Amino acid sequence: MVVIAIIIFSAMLIGASTYDIDPTWVAILKILDIGVTLFFLIEILIRIAAEKRFLNFFKNGWNVFDLIIVTISLIPIDESEMVLLARLLRIFRVLRLISMIPELRVLMNALVKSIPRIGYVVLLMFIIFYIFAAIGSLMYEKINPVLWGDIAISMLTLFRVATFEDWTDVMYETMEVYPFSWAYYLVFIFLTAFVFLNMMIGVVIDVMTKENEKMSIELGQGEASEVHWIKEHTEEIEQRMERMEALLHQLAENKPTDKPGK
Amino acid sequence: MVVIAIIIFSAMLIGASTYDIDPTWVAILKILDIGVTLFFLIEILIRIAAEKRFLNFFKNGWNVFDLIIVTISLIPIDESEMVLLARLLRIFRVLRLISMIPELRVLMNALVKSIPRIGYVVLLMFIIFYIFAAIGSLMYEKINPVLWGDIAISMLTLFRVATFEDWTDVMYETMEVYPFSWAYYLVFIFLTAFVFLNMMIGVVIDVMTKENEKMSIELGQGEASEVHWIKEHTEEIEQRMERMEALLHQLAENKPTDKPGK
Amino acid sequence: MVVIAIIIFSAMLIGASTYDIDPTWVAILKILDIGVTLFFLIEILIRIAAEKRFLNFFKNGWNVFDLIIVTISLIPIDESEMVLLARLLRIFRVLRLISMIPELRVLMNALVKSIPRIGYVVLLMFIIFYIFAAIGSLMYEKINPVLWGDIAISMLTLFRVATFEDWTDVMYETMEVYPFSWAYYLVFIFLTAFVFLNMMIGVVIDVMTKENEKMSIELGQGEASEVHWIKEHTEEIEQRMERMEALLHQLAENKPTDKPGK
Amino acid sequence: MVVIAIIIFSAMLIGASTYDIDPTWVAILKILDIGVTLFFLIEILIRIAAEKRFLNFFKNGWNVFDLIIVTISLIPIDESEMVLLARLLRIFRVLRLISMIPELRVLMNALVKSIPRIGYVVLLMFIIFYIFAAIGSLMYEKINPVLWGDIAISMLTLFRVATFEDWTDVMYETMEVYPFSWAYYLVFIFLTAFVFLNMMIGVVIDVMTKENEKMSIELGQGEASEVHWIKEHTEEIEQRMERMEALLHQLAENKPTDKPGK
Repeated sequence: MVVIAIIIFSAMLIGASTYDIDPTWVAILKILDIGVTLFFLIEILIRIAAEKRFLNFFKNGWNVFDLIIVTISLIPIDESEMVLLARLLRIFRVLRLISMIPELRVLMNALVKSIPRIGYVVLLMFIIFYIFAAIGSLMYEKINPVLWGDIAISMLTLFRVATFEDWTDVMYETMEVYPFSWAYYLVFIFLTAFVFLNMMIGVVIDVMTKENEKMSIELGQGEASEVHWIKEHTEEIEQRMERMEALLHQLAENKPTDKPGK
Repeated sequence: MVVIAIIIFSAMLIGASTYDIDPTWVAILKILDIGVTLFFLIEILIRIAAEKRFLNFFKNGWNVFDLIIVTISLIPIDESEMVLLARLLRIFRVLRLISMIPELRVLMNALVKSIPRIGYVVLLMFIIFYIFAAIGSLMYEKINPVLWGDIAISMLTLFRVATFEDWTDVMYETMEVYPFSWAYYLVFIFLTAFVFLNMMIGVVIDVMTKENEKMSIELGQGEASEVHWIKEHTEEIEQRMERMEALLHQLAENKPTDKPGK
Repeated sequence: MVVIAIIIFSAMLIGASTYDIDPTWVAILKILDIGVTLFFLIEILIRIAAEKRFLNFFKNGWNVFDLIIVTISLIPIDESEMVLLARLLRIFRVLRLISMIPELRVLMNALVKSIPRIGYVVLLMFIIFYIFAAIGSLMYEKINPVLWGDIAISMLTLFRVATFEDWTDVMYETMEVYPFSWAYYLVFIFLTAFVFLNMMIGVVIDVMTKENEKMSIELGQGEASEVHWIKEHTEEIEQRMERMEALLHQLAENKPTDKPGK
Repeated sequence: MVVIAIIIFSAMLIGASTYDIDPTWVAILKILDIGVTLFFLIEILIRIAAEKRFLNFFKNGWNVFDLIIVTISLIPIDESEMVLLARLLRIFRVLRLISMIPELRVLMNALVKSIPRIGYVVLLMFIIFYIFAAIGSLMYEKINPVLWGDIAISMLTLFRVATFEDWTDVMYETMEVYPFSWAYYLVFIFLTAFVFLNMMIGVVIDVMTKENEKMSIELGQGEASEVHWIKEHTEEIEQRMERMEALLHQLAENKPTDKPGK
């Protein structure tokens, strides 16, 4: 809890430094900032020391994450022109909140798990953007080089169209030269909206369903856990039935061997 | 039903008071408003009196909700300068519709249930906004202090970017100084859209699935209830099989003990 | 198929009439339009005549739907000033496509089924809009009466904010007088986005899941149908086990009664 | 892997050609382009030759897809005025990335599977757009012929409204003549948003759920596979029980036939 409070305090220091404040406060902020840096350094050293074996510390991804963030803010950047970079690096300390609050760790793990599958969706989207940007750049470059100058600028313009930001202005401009260019925009919007929605929802539902099933079985409640229970008990029933059938066979065989003995 | 009608009537009074109307009507509205306030007061007193034990009334969250709203509108605010506040407080009477219509109560309960999990998503979003606002404020403050003056203003600007509202204007402005600042906006839009969509859909599906399963089991129809039925009957089958196995063992043992007795 | 072709042809006539065309074509369109009207009249009369009992025709909602659309386009509107209305009424003929294509009927049925539950979501949204419009109208009326004049105009302005359409212009205007009015917009956007997304997705998933389960059981494939199959067979197993247990009891009892008889 | 590298290289050539570059580089690009075309031609010929039977090659949709793309880029377009078309056709080579990366193939297959069902949703959306465009064209043509001139232009305007792009400008313009025309826009936005969201999510969830179930059964993990396992074992249990019941009957019948023989 103390660590979380210090992280929030450190985040507020960063926020405060964006306001115009008089020099006295700037000096105080600087001292507090050094204090926070030291605190983080000591905290991480204690955590490393607490580990029985030195290398175990690095097995947990979150520990490595914390260590990198603390190390970055230790880099001595003194030249006045690099002040901006030094400040930027210290901002990432706020990310330590994620590694400190368990619920946020769970959320991040879920996000990270869906990254590989999202990656291919992004790749597909990139191919769509690339093809449309190449077409747009070839056809509309002479109309408005600011928007369609080369393939990189065209992709930025298409991203703008995909977010519906003043996309009609872009369209009406090209429609003056190519009256049927609305088809280009409509097909592009349909494709991106369709692919994006379709796949994002698909991936999220897929990841969610599997996580829920796992949780349900672990917690022992919900449909998935009941199905799991039934499966296990069906196995037991099968074994018991095998024993019973064997007994019955024994009984049925006993009878005939019984009779002759009588 | 009478209470719902009075609430709707009270909501219409509030609506009517926003139109420019002549003084006679204003007076009539005032009298009607006092009538509505009295009606609500009497109604809540009857409901408290109807309760066998006084404290039971407060066990139901919706009763407390109603009581607070009625109490608030009773606060005597007479000074002319406070008229605005008095009116504002009376608007919340419309919320009593939610506590009166059972279907809306169910919807609200579902919403309230998803709040703790949504809370962590909002916290994660806030961290993302905070980091990007700090970066934006450090880098773009000199370009346009109206949009990037301090961390609070920057967060508002980023919220605007996240809603795609004229975000290209913001981007083109900073791209004149930092030509690669489009990466900042793209990463930000991807992160917020991805985290928001991913988690909102995730939470909603999660809450929905559990509610549906519970409903299905209560109503006795649908897959979850069938699985529940199978589970219960599998338990019965197991018990019956245990009895049968015991009987079989008895039979098998009877035989040998039978023979010698013969 | 002929009917579908005629409906599409009729839709194209309506479309054609919106273009500026010379009088000869207008006359031809008029004649064709009368032809289409007659065709639809005859088609519906044949369908009514084909029904064995006259009233059965009205039991199917789609028949009533068709009849109303055909009847409406028969209303004789001759006065030149009512031409607009006559034309508007004929547009609804296109809706007959939905009643003719079975797949669209299925889609419409699914939509209609979710309307009652969507209705309550819309009611909740309306309450949120009403409360915020009342607050907005009280507080911002003097700033810009065009946007916040009365509660009806305020609701339209809020709908605009909810669609993110130039909502920052609306916000920056009120922030000049009330610097903290951004909170009003942020809370409103969060509430509407959250309630809308949460409930729309919820309702859709709920309706879909149930439809899918039903379909799966009818088609006899998929998880829900397998669970259904297991349930039915579990019942059979139970009955068979009861018979077996009875037989075993009989066997066990036969033994002792057997012995004395020996 | 070499093929993927060449495709990416070819895509970069296309991208590079959209930049303003000096003639030397243009000549180099041309030569490289011819090289890529030859490489693709040879690669596809090898793949055809590798097939045992010539016709088998065409049974795989992705092979046909590759062949068409390669053939298109072979068409000799030499006239200077057709350079644009020649370039456009070569852009589609990037699509070969999809047929080369297995994960993208899977994504595309999932997309293609949902097309027939999406088709009907698009048809329903088209009917809604057509009806509203006809109404809009009839009523608002005189107000602004640029936006509502004929049914085609009106549909484009409505698409703009559906994407919330400056839709209030369109609305405020018509509200000056028809003060209640806000109802037209609100109904349209509700209908399209509702139908689109409802059906897109519905179709995606439906397709996903079925794919997940199939995957779960194939991989042998997850709820669907457990249900499948239980189903199969329930069948085995039933057969075993039938055998056991037969044995029991035999035992029970043996007894009486036993006694007389004694």
